[in-house]
Amino acid sequence: MRLSRYFLPVLKENPSEAQIVSHRLMLRAGMIKQASAGIYAWLPLGFKVLRKLENIVHEEQVRAGHIPMLMPTLQSADLWRESGRYDGYGEEMLRMQDRHGRDMLYSPTAEEMFTDVFRANVNSYKDLPLTLYQIQWKFRDEIRPRFGVMRGREFLMKDGYNFDLSKEDALHAYNRHLVSYLRTYERMGLQAIPMRADSGPIGGDYTHEFLVLADTGESEVFYDSEITDLTFGDRDIDFDSVEQCQAVLEEFTSRYARTDETHDEALFAEVPEDRRRTARGIEVGQIFYFGTQYSDAMGAAVQGPDGKPVSIHMGSHGIGVSRLLGAIIEASHDENGIIWPEGVTPFHVGIVNLKQGDEEADSACEALYDSFTAAGLDPLYDDRKERAGGKFATMDLIGLPWRITVGPRGLKNGVVELTSRRTGESEELPPEQAVEKIIQIYAKHRVTGL
Amino acid sequence: MRLSRYFLPVLKENPSEAQIVSHRLMLRAGMIKQASAGIYAWLPLGFKVLRKLENIVHEEQVRAGHIPMLMPTLQSADLWRESGRYDGYGEEMLRMQDRHGRDMLYSPTAEEMFTDVFRANVNSYKDLPLTLYQIQWKFRDEIRPRFGVMRGREFLMKDGYNFDLSKEDALHAYNRHLVSYLRTYERMGLQAIPMRADSGPIGGDYTHEFLVLADTGESEVFYDSEITDLTFGDRDIDFDSVEQCQAVLEEFTSRYARTDETHDEALFAEVPEDRRRTARGIEVGQIFYFGTQYSDAMGAAVQGPDGKPVSIHMGSHGIGVSRLLGAIIEASHDENGIIWPEGVTPFHVGIVNLKQGDEEADSACEALYDSFTAAGLDPLYDDRKERAGGKFATMDLIGLPWRITVGPRGLKNGVVELTSRRTGESEELPPEQAVEKIIQIYAKHRVTGL
Repeated sequence: MRLSRYFLPVLKENPSEAQIVSHRLMLRAGMIKQASAGIYAWLPLGFKVLRKLENIVHEEQVRAGHIPMLMPTLQSADLWRESGRYDGYGEEMLRMQDRHGRDMLYSPTAEEMFTDVFRANVNSYKDLPLTLYQIQWKFRDEIRPRFGVMRGREFLMKDGYNFDLSKEDALHAYNRHLVSYLRTYERMGLQAIPMRADSGPIGGDYTHEFLVLADTGESEVFYDSEITDLTFGDRDIDFDSVEQCQAVLEEFTSRYARTDETHDEALFAEVPEDRRRTARGIEVGQIFYFGTQYSDAMGAAVQGPDGKPVSIHMGSHGIGVSRLLGAIIEASHDENGIIWPEGVTPFHVGIVNLKQGDEEADSACEALYDSFTAAGLDPLYDDRKERAGGKFATMDLIGLPWRITVGPRGLKNGVVELTSRRTGESEELPPEQAVEKIIQIYAKHRVTGL
Repeated sequence: MRLSRYFLPVLKENPSEAQIVSHRLMLRAGMIKQASAGIYAWLPLGFKVLRKLENIVHEEQVRAGHIPMLMPTLQSADLWRESGRYDGYGEEMLRMQDRHGRDMLYSPTAEEMFTDVFRANVNSYKDLPLTLYQIQWKFRDEIRPRFGVMRGREFLMKDGYNFDLSKEDALHAYNRHLVSYLRTYERMGLQAIPMRADSGPIGGDYTHEFLVLADTGESEVFYDSEITDLTFGDRDIDFDSVEQCQAVLEEFTSRYARTDETHDEALFAEVPEDRRRTARGIEVGQIFYFGTQYSDAMGAAVQGPDGKPVSIHMGSHGIGVSRLLGAIIEASHDENGIIWPEGVTPFHVGIVNLKQGDEEADSACEALYDSFTAAGLDPLYDDRKERAGGKFATMDLIGLPWRITVGPRGLKNGVVELTSRRTGESEELPPEQAVEKIIQIYAKHRVTGL
């Protein structure tokens, strides 16, 4: 993309309504614009990252064997009356009537609707196991929406539902989700720690939240510092293997890690003192096993191997996709702006032309642009007639991990400058080598999506 | 995908609620399930096609230089009061109040919100031209939703908005949209004819609808038969070129082609009698130029080259993405089921194993599966223990354009059978040749998306 043809309305001033850094930077970098309280328009740069996160989540869910589909945002109240949640959900559920006076609601989650699709179509144990999921907009009418996309009212969520014949199978689904979530967050450059959680209004005995450590997190967290040394890395996991998934669960959840909701001082005291940590965390996902609660309420059973009906064991598993943008920025920024991890950056590399209009500089930039595009990478070329300082400030603000600076002086020596946003370090090298280096960096960060 | 692990709830019976063939086939092929009147859950097969259509629309919009972003589904009533449409829109607008009693609505279209983003961020003629678009769920509370996704209440729409300094520039944007839409529909295997249309509640002088000819179309159409000989083909269009885009517009709109809303008997009589055609058509898109109507109402102006404020010339341009599934099926099916065009098929090829459990047949199927996957194609392998007739019927119903049948008898001779869904013709050839042929067929039907 050439910046002169893009729509990137960056702000010079710090917006007064933003209390936390991710909200401030998303507004300043022209990623979002508030439409109503807790409801945002996703400007082109914000949408680009959102779509990339969505695609990463899809890829990792499909890798784990889960099947994508899509529910409508508006649902009939009747289904929610069946499960008993229509009256219980409270004021966060946005309700409305259609022109015929029928009670409708904007889906805040979708246990009922997935259970309904399941019971209408699956009759035999032979069709199990099954995990269906969607990435769809949800609405929760928060009384005090705040922190930008971190606590919005209309938000994009991945919600998945497993349908299994037994508790044992459902716990494998639970573990599979844990593994796929670890992979997902790592690809996004995040360390998200699974912590024992409270099941809240969804119910159930088994649940973990995934928390990203950040000073602005809404939860207080307590953990054994050994847990932050764990990485999932490039392991080749067989998601069908009960043992492999169980082993990952044990590795990542055996150390103490809890939020204030489930914190247990006595247990925490057993952690060696030099490894006890208290911090703040942002919740970016949660997994639940809740057994037959919804399937019993809604009559979702299948015929078992012996011909008798079996209640389905279910769980639900969520990732807050739009909120992840905020979490990533909270975890990765400096005083000049955002620092995108390579896995999620909206553009792979920025090209800054120090002397727009200079024939040699222009054609060197165009050649770089074409090389990146031909390699399947997505460069952002600042081709505006602006002074260098303004161009650098914009690139720093929007946080592309790599920048190539092109100017007449360097070109005379056959070099351009390659700068890392994270370290600020620069090196001069011939343009072809800069391109090659960038291509190599991104070789393991390809996002295909659905 | 292996069918034994997929969720494809096909129906044997014809669903009684479906009046038209696309609705019937989408229900039977397990693509959708009605959630409420005019509101559908997109089951995995339906979602897969929907996502592919969405990605094709994105690719073609980006190719034309248009910039993707995303608006929220829920909007404040205030913006619509500014434009004067809140009271005028009528009962098709779904209205609600949030917990604080603020008036909200589910966006049926987004002229107001895009104009608001524009006026808040663009001040100078130097930032023009600009075309922003989104693909987002919309809601229109139709009094009698029907025909499945063809006339649903919650539907996925691409809506784009151009912002230009003059009528001349805005008409180039109009033409650019016409060109990009022709490309888009052709990639989907559709012939969509631009017809002079009525501007309706959006207003404006210039508007074309795109109609797909089909017996079940809701509009009566009148056209010069020469128009159906036109194809866009592989032309390499420069979307910045006013001349090139204008020439395409003239080529595709100079012959008589109108819906009943704008039909003119006297003009139609000038078409040579043997070329006059009357048929039915399905509307799959519409483009508008409406001048300064919204920018004047909402104060969207920029500083012109002479320093004086200039009202922005706008247009809006829509593609009914979810409705396209219905239109494609109406235009491409037979008595056995859907026939997907290669550009939009949910899976590229079906693999039918005639003797599941036979070691040689199983491993031949697995080898085919791996070859396709390695080539970046998406096969559907029917690995169920079902009789051949049932497997063929399912493949015909869901409409994959190509099927490879693998059985012990053929394998003894070193061949598999490759069958075209459209012609029903089969040929026997060695597995590697079948793979090669399929790869070649899809070489020009790659969808990347955003």
